[in-house]
Amino acid sequence: MVATAAETVPHLTTALTGPLNIIENVILDRQSRIESWFRSQWRKTPAPLYASVDLRNAGYKIAPVDTNLFPAGFNNLNPVFESLCIQAVQSALERLDRPVDRVLIIPENHTRNMHYLENLAVLQGIFEKAGFETRTGSLLPGLHEAMQIDLDSGSSVCLEPLHREGAGVCVRDFRPELLVLNNDLSSGIPDFLQGVDQLIMPPVNLGWSDRSKTVHFNFYRDIARDFSALLDIDPWLIEPLFRNCGEVDFMKRAGESCLSRNVESLLNAIRKKYDEYGITDDPFVMIKADSGTYGMGVMSVQSPEEVHDLNRKQRTKMATIKEGQKVTKAMIQEGVHTHETWDKPGTVAEPVIYLIDQNVVGGFYRVHPQRATNENLNSPGMYFERLAFEECCNSPDKDQSPDAHPNRFYTYGVIARLASLAAAREMKNLG
Amino acid sequence: MVATAAETVPHLTTALTGPLNIIENVILDRQSRIESWFRSQWRKTPAPLYASVDLRNAGYKIAPVDTNLFPAGFNNLNPVFESLCIQAVQSALERLDRPVDRVLIIPENHTRNMHYLENLAVLQGIFEKAGFETRTGSLLPGLHEAMQIDLDSGSSVCLEPLHREGAGVCVRDFRPELLVLNNDLSSGIPDFLQGVDQLIMPPVNLGWSDRSKTVHFNFYRDIARDFSALLDIDPWLIEPLFRNCGEVDFMKRAGESCLSRNVESLLNAIRKKYDEYGITDDPFVMIKADSGTYGMGVMSVQSPEEVHDLNRKQRTKMATIKEGQKVTKAMIQEGVHTHETWDKPGTVAEPVIYLIDQNVVGGFYRVHPQRATNENLNSPGMYFERLAFEECCNSPDKDQSPDAHPNRFYTYGVIARLASLAAAREMKNLG
Repeated sequence: MVATAAETVPHLTTALTGPLNIIENVILDRQSRIESWFRSQWRKTPAPLYASVDLRNAGYKIAPVDTNLFPAGFNNLNPVFESLCIQAVQSALERLDRPVDRVLIIPENHTRNMHYLENLAVLQGIFEKAGFETRTGSLLPGLHEAMQIDLDSGSSVCLEPLHREGAGVCVRDFRPELLVLNNDLSSGIPDFLQGVDQLIMPPVNLGWSDRSKTVHFNFYRDIARDFSALLDIDPWLIEPLFRNCGEVDFMKRAGESCLSRNVESLLNAIRKKYDEYGITDDPFVMIKADSGTYGMGVMSVQSPEEVHDLNRKQRTKMATIKEGQKVTKAMIQEGVHTHETWDKPGTVAEPVIYLIDQNVVGGFYRVHPQRATNENLNSPGMYFERLAFEECCNSPDKDQSPDAHPNRFYTYGVIARLASLAAAREMKNLG
Repeated sequence: MVATAAETVPHLTTALTGPLNIIENVILDRQSRIESWFRSQWRKTPAPLYASVDLRNAGYKIAPVDTNLFPAGFNNLNPVFESLCIQAVQSALERLDRPVDRVLIIPENHTRNMHYLENLAVLQGIFEKAGFETRTGSLLPGLHEAMQIDLDSGSSVCLEPLHREGAGVCVRDFRPELLVLNNDLSSGIPDFLQGVDQLIMPPVNLGWSDRSKTVHFNFYRDIARDFSALLDIDPWLIEPLFRNCGEVDFMKRAGESCLSRNVESLLNAIRKKYDEYGITDDPFVMIKADSGTYGMGVMSVQSPEEVHDLNRKQRTKMATIKEGQKVTKAMIQEGVHTHETWDKPGTVAEPVIYLIDQNVVGGFYRVHPQRATNENLNSPGMYFERLAFEECCNSPDKDQSPDAHPNRFYTYGVIARLASLAAAREMKNLG
């Protein structure tokens, strides 16, 4: 029932230049110091309820490129991880200052995306098994009665219409103490969730209508600097460099010079780092909508000229993201090559790590057979490969080599927690 | 690597009378209410650091018969449980009001019991992987330098001599913030641990020199009563009846009349319950040293006469327990038949459940091919069978039958937590 490690771990192509495995080595070596540091950080800034973090592993560098605070994809985790998720949910909710017995999950308004609904069923199951009465209440406009949807896996979800009772959000006669958002609020905070006296986790102001990648990676930069000082390594080994442009309009070609100037300056900065470490990869950058998600509003660029040469189709693709929101700000992020391949050369893979509270509870590989090592894998054609339980990111093994699976996965867990800590600081900052 | 469920779950012999599966049914049905109740209990009385609980499952009744607060046997847990143990240790120690980075385990003085030493290696590994610098300091008299012991599993333990620095217990230059006792202090609290300003978990006054089974099961009785009221079931279904004798001396035959009187009254009480439920098993009771452990000082008795007919060898066996401590008090506990068999009929099995903090983190079956359903299985000839991870006691599945493995194991976890709660009350009571 559990595949063997050999089947479930991508091959890291090591036939390249650069300071390979420096990070795993150092992280393994200073594990107690790292964990002690994390403990002190979580005491100051508690972790968000949950998160998923996209990582890229170039061998010489491992960095987060996206931190999702309303993660879907729990259905892609190995089912044997579930006990860890259950325990982590229990510990997160038991720590709250108000007792919680009833939980209402508020999901995305997808009723036909079966993958998303499978995620929802698994998520609800985790909260139920953790011992909370759990229902799912939908923000879907026009939903007037409960909608039961049967899923291929054999489970089902029941979306119930929300109603307000004073300061409380309810479904039928069920008044939860906690609302769990699994909706990234791309279109803003709905009226329905204004002036609510129940706990809402994560808080509504962490939705993409208010959140900014630039702010996140600003916090991440500070964290990477502190953490690297602790380990005495170059922060660049764990951090994607970035720039940002505050006023862009891809359709009107506004902000183009800001974009191309930043692309150039960032490419130069990356090139300098590559030279320093003798890395022969070609530098590239990702232009991303500053508040986008779902892999939308993302493009890979290798020269400043490409910004001017965008055709209409490419502009349209960059201009609008989820739920028709217009892109007005962009982040230009260092592209991190992914040198992990699944199964056979050319099938590029990147790890996605899941956290509940401050605990790493699992992950999977996003795999794309039609993408190159310098492209966004979060696009049609991708699929997911589960990690085996023995490699679930909290079990480093000093008796094995730094790149042995439990240790590589432990490193992933450490970097993912740095990203989650950046989100915790965003949360604190927003009050 | 993980055995299938079919291989790892004992057969519950259901061809008998009595209200079979009542408990599993009710527990599964009221799961959120049960978990809510536990949450409110742990808020009032935090769980001990760790515990193992011996259960007996008669089909019509499931009850704890022994609660060990200094559990060995972590090496008998399925290694895939380890992540749960790691996470539970992190959550327990992060909640403390003083930051802990360094941990010193103080084990039993066994240097030749390889099973115990394997347990110690696993336990130390759990704390290390959880991110605490961990060493093992031994109370062994005459230990003047570190003793490295290599184990069959390939790992090793290093027992280091303890020394005091003022109010601190240290090994070499290592001054831990937390002492973890894995020694049940049968001979009393050693001078070495007096007046220590470090945290000690579990507290020294929970050692067997101060602890009493009678006190534990008194607390358990209150808890079973409250819990049964919550579920609207007869408390007897989850509780072993008991009596106690305060002044016995098996060698001098002192207290014999108290023992036989209590054996008789308890057998009558059990018989009455059996009649009420139409159970055709023969009642029996266990006489146990009130402060004993390791399966020592325990005997199974089916009539009051047996107390008078003990031969010299039997008396000697009952009179002295671990580390030569004399037995002066006895508990007479209702014997609970174990109707679980491993592999083939006649190979009797009983579940042993492990907790860290309030979390159920795993368990195994204690199996004994030469013992009957009404005997103590904790005796030479026993062996252990691991539970598979999918059935790790925190994942009830309402889509399956109440006796399906995840649900039976969830029930075990519930009963084991009731016993751990009784220990929590002992702890609070001792201050």
